[in-house]
Amino acid sequence: MIVLLSDFGLEGPYIGQVKAVLQRRAPGLPVIDLFSDLPPFRPQPAAYLLAAYAAAFPPGCVFLAVVDPGVGSARAALAAKIGQQWYVGPDNGLFAIAARRAASVGAWTIAADPARLSASFHGRDLFAPVAAEIALTGAPPAAGQATDAALGPQGVGVDWPDELAEIVYIDRFGNAITGLRAATLSRRAVLRLGGSELRFARTFSAVAPGRAFWYENANGLVEIAANQSSAAASLGFRVGQAIALQDDPS
Amino acid sequence: MIVLLSDFGLEGPYIGQVKAVLQRRAPGLPVIDLFSDLPPFRPQPAAYLLAAYAAAFPPGCVFLAVVDPGVGSARAALAAKIGQQWYVGPDNGLFAIAARRAASVGAWTIAADPARLSASFHGRDLFAPVAAEIALTGAPPAAGQATDAALGPQGVGVDWPDELAEIVYIDRFGNAITGLRAATLSRRAVLRLGGSELRFARTFSAVAPGRAFWYENANGLVEIAANQSSAAASLGFRVGQAIALQDDPS
Amino acid sequence: MIVLLSDFGLEGPYIGQVKAVLQRRAPGLPVIDLFSDLPPFRPQPAAYLLAAYAAAFPPGCVFLAVVDPGVGSARAALAAKIGQQWYVGPDNGLFAIAARRAASVGAWTIAADPARLSASFHGRDLFAPVAAEIALTGAPPAAGQATDAALGPQGVGVDWPDELAEIVYIDRFGNAITGLRAATLSRRAVLRLGGSELRFARTFSAVAPGRAFWYENANGLVEIAANQSSAAASLGFRVGQAIALQDDPS
Repeated sequence: MIVLLSDFGLEGPYIGQVKAVLQRRAPGLPVIDLFSDLPPFRPQPAAYLLAAYAAAFPPGCVFLAVVDPGVGSARAALAAKIGQQWYVGPDNGLFAIAARRAASVGAWTIAADPARLSASFHGRDLFAPVAAEIALTGAPPAAGQATDAALGPQGVGVDWPDELAEIVYIDRFGNAITGLRAATLSRRAVLRLGGSELRFARTFSAVAPGRAFWYENANGLVEIAANQSSAAASLGFRVGQAIALQDDPS
Repeated sequence: MIVLLSDFGLEGPYIGQVKAVLQRRAPGLPVIDLFSDLPPFRPQPAAYLLAAYAAAFPPGCVFLAVVDPGVGSARAALAAKIGQQWYVGPDNGLFAIAARRAASVGAWTIAADPARLSASFHGRDLFAPVAAEIALTGAPPAAGQATDAALGPQGVGVDWPDELAEIVYIDRFGNAITGLRAATLSRRAVLRLGGSELRFARTFSAVAPGRAFWYENANGLVEIAANQSSAAASLGFRVGQAIALQDDPS
Repeated sequence: MIVLLSDFGLEGPYIGQVKAVLQRRAPGLPVIDLFSDLPPFRPQPAAYLLAAYAAAFPPGCVFLAVVDPGVGSARAALAAKIGQQWYVGPDNGLFAIAARRAASVGAWTIAADPARLSASFHGRDLFAPVAAEIALTGAPPAAGQATDAALGPQGVGVDWPDELAEIVYIDRFGNAITGLRAATLSRRAVLRLGGSELRFARTFSAVAPGRAFWYENANGLVEIAANQSSAAASLGFRVGQAIALQDDPS
C-alpha cells in the first residue's frame, strides 16, 4: 500500500499526475490519500503529523510524503526505512520525528537523473517512481546510496522538540490538531493560546455545544475542538500558533 | 461496491483513514466517494440527499454514511438493509428518509468493542469494518442485534416531513439542492426564499446567463441554479434556509 | 486508463457518480482524477490545460473532459481520437487545441438516447458510458457518427490562438498557470499583468522568498509563482486575466 501525504492540495493536477505514475509503475497497487492539504511549505508541522498518523498503518506501507519548499535546490532526496515502514521524500526534516521514535532507521539518498526531472515537481518525477519501486520490491531503491546519518547528511530536524506545542493542522470542522502527544500530558493540563484557556474533555458530547476543549484525538494527538462548531473560527487559530501548557492548580 | 457519504471534508486525514481500513478488510473492493462534504453536524439534510442519491446505485451497494454530531455519546450504531441496499452509520435519523420510501427495511444495532474504539472517529473504528464485512458477506453483521424498530430504538427522524422544503446542499457552482422531490411539484410552482421568486426551467441553457430558476436535477430533486453563475452567492443562500412554495397564479 | 478533467469540483456528488458509472461499465479499469476544479463554465482555458497535461499520458488513454456550460442545449457530444489518445466530452472547443497540435485527428458525434439522459448531467449519463466503452474496446463508439470536421460540425475554438496569453488556472499555492507554452518564449521575456513585471527564473529556490517570477512548469507551460508565498493573492490575479509580453531590453 502506498500512502500519500503532501501540501499539493486536492485541487489541481498534482495528485493525479503522481497517481498516474504510480499506476503505470505499480499497476493495481492500492494508493491511499492520507493528507493532501498539509500546511504549505512547512516540513516541521508535517513531520509531527506524519509520525502520529503513520503509526496506524501496517508494516510494509510506503509513505510518499512531499512538502518541499526547497524543490529545485540542492536539498537531497531520501528513502528511509523507519521501523517496518518506508518513507520517500525530500530530506528536509519531514521524517525526523518518525525516525526519532523508531527502533531502527535506515536511510538512502536518491540521485535523480536530471534529464528526466522537472525543476518543480519531484513528487511526480523522482519520489513517485522510487515509492513504486520500493512498494514492489520491499527493498531499498537500487540506485540509492546508503547514508550513515539517520536521516541523511543534512540533519534537518535534529533539534526539533519531541513534542511540538503548536497548532500543526486545522481541519474542516475547525478542529486544531497540535504536535503534542496526549499521552505526555496530564488530563488536568490547561492549554493557553490566543487568550483562551482550554481544559480536557473525553468526547465532544461531554461538553455543551459551542464550548471549546482539548481531547486526545483518534491518532493520539492533543486536539482542540468545540462541540458542533468551529474552534478555529471562534478563537482565531492558525497553523504555527504556539500553545502554553500549565497544570490546573484547582 | 462501498459508497462513502460524510461531512468529514475531502481535506484532512479522515477519508483516507476510512479507505485504508476498507482496503485492509476488503482488498480490491471498489470504493466510491459520493459526498465528502455533507453539511457538518446535520443528519437531517444528509438524510434527504442520501435517499435521493442512493436510488441510482445498484442492489447490493453498501452506503457507509457518517454525519455524527453525537459521536462518543450513547447514540446507537446501525446497519440497515433498506430495499436491496445496505446502510451503515449512526442511529440519528440519517437513514430515516431512505427507509420510509423502501418496500422493506431490516435494522441491526452494532455493539462496539470499547477497547478498539476511539472517542471521536467511529467512522474509521466501527462503521468501516462493519461496512467491509457486509460488502464481503452480503449478510447482516455477525455481531449485530436485530431490532424491531424500523430504524433502531431511538426513532430519530420519524417526524421529519416526506419532502423537506429547505436547502440541503450548495455545490461548487453555487447551485442549491433542496430536500424536495421534483415529481411532487407542479412545473408551475413558484419557490420563494430570501426575497427571490424562482420559476421552473428544464435546462440551464433555457434561461439567460445569470438568471436564477429551479429545475429537476439529475437525481430527481428540486435544485435552484443560475445559468453560468452562482445562485447561492448572488441570492445569499445557506444550507437550512426554508423555501415557501406556491402555485403560479398566472 | 481513464483520466477525468472537469469543472465539477471535488466537492459534492458529481465525480463520485461519474466514477460509479465507470466502475460498473469497465470494472477494475484505473481512473485518475487529473483536474476536478477547472475554471467553471469556461471551455477555452480548459482546452489549453488539456492539451498541455494530456501529453505526459500514455497512448490509449481516454480523457473524459467535461466543462459544459451548454449542457441541455443543442451542442453536440464528441468522441475524438487525437494522436494515439481518446477524448470524450462536449463539442465546445475543449479539444480544439489538442487536436490542432496532433498529427492525426478523427472525430465522431455521439447521439444520446434522450430517455436515459438527464437535462443537466451528461458527464454521468452520456460521456462516462462512452469513455468506458472506448477504454474497453480501443475503438470509436459503436453508436458514433464519423464527422469530417476535425472537431465536429461546429468548429468551436477554430479561431483560438496557438498560445493563450492569459491566466488559465490558479492552484492551491497561488501559482498562476498560463496558456503559453514556455518553449515559445525567450528566457528574457518579461510578462506584464496587473501592474507587475515578471522575469524568468528556473526554480523557486533561485529567487528570494516572496518574490514573484515566471518559469516553465512541469508540463511545459509558463507559470507565474512566488517563492513560498502566493503570487495570486499578493498580485491579485484571476483566471482570464490577460498577459502582455515583451522582450527584456536590458
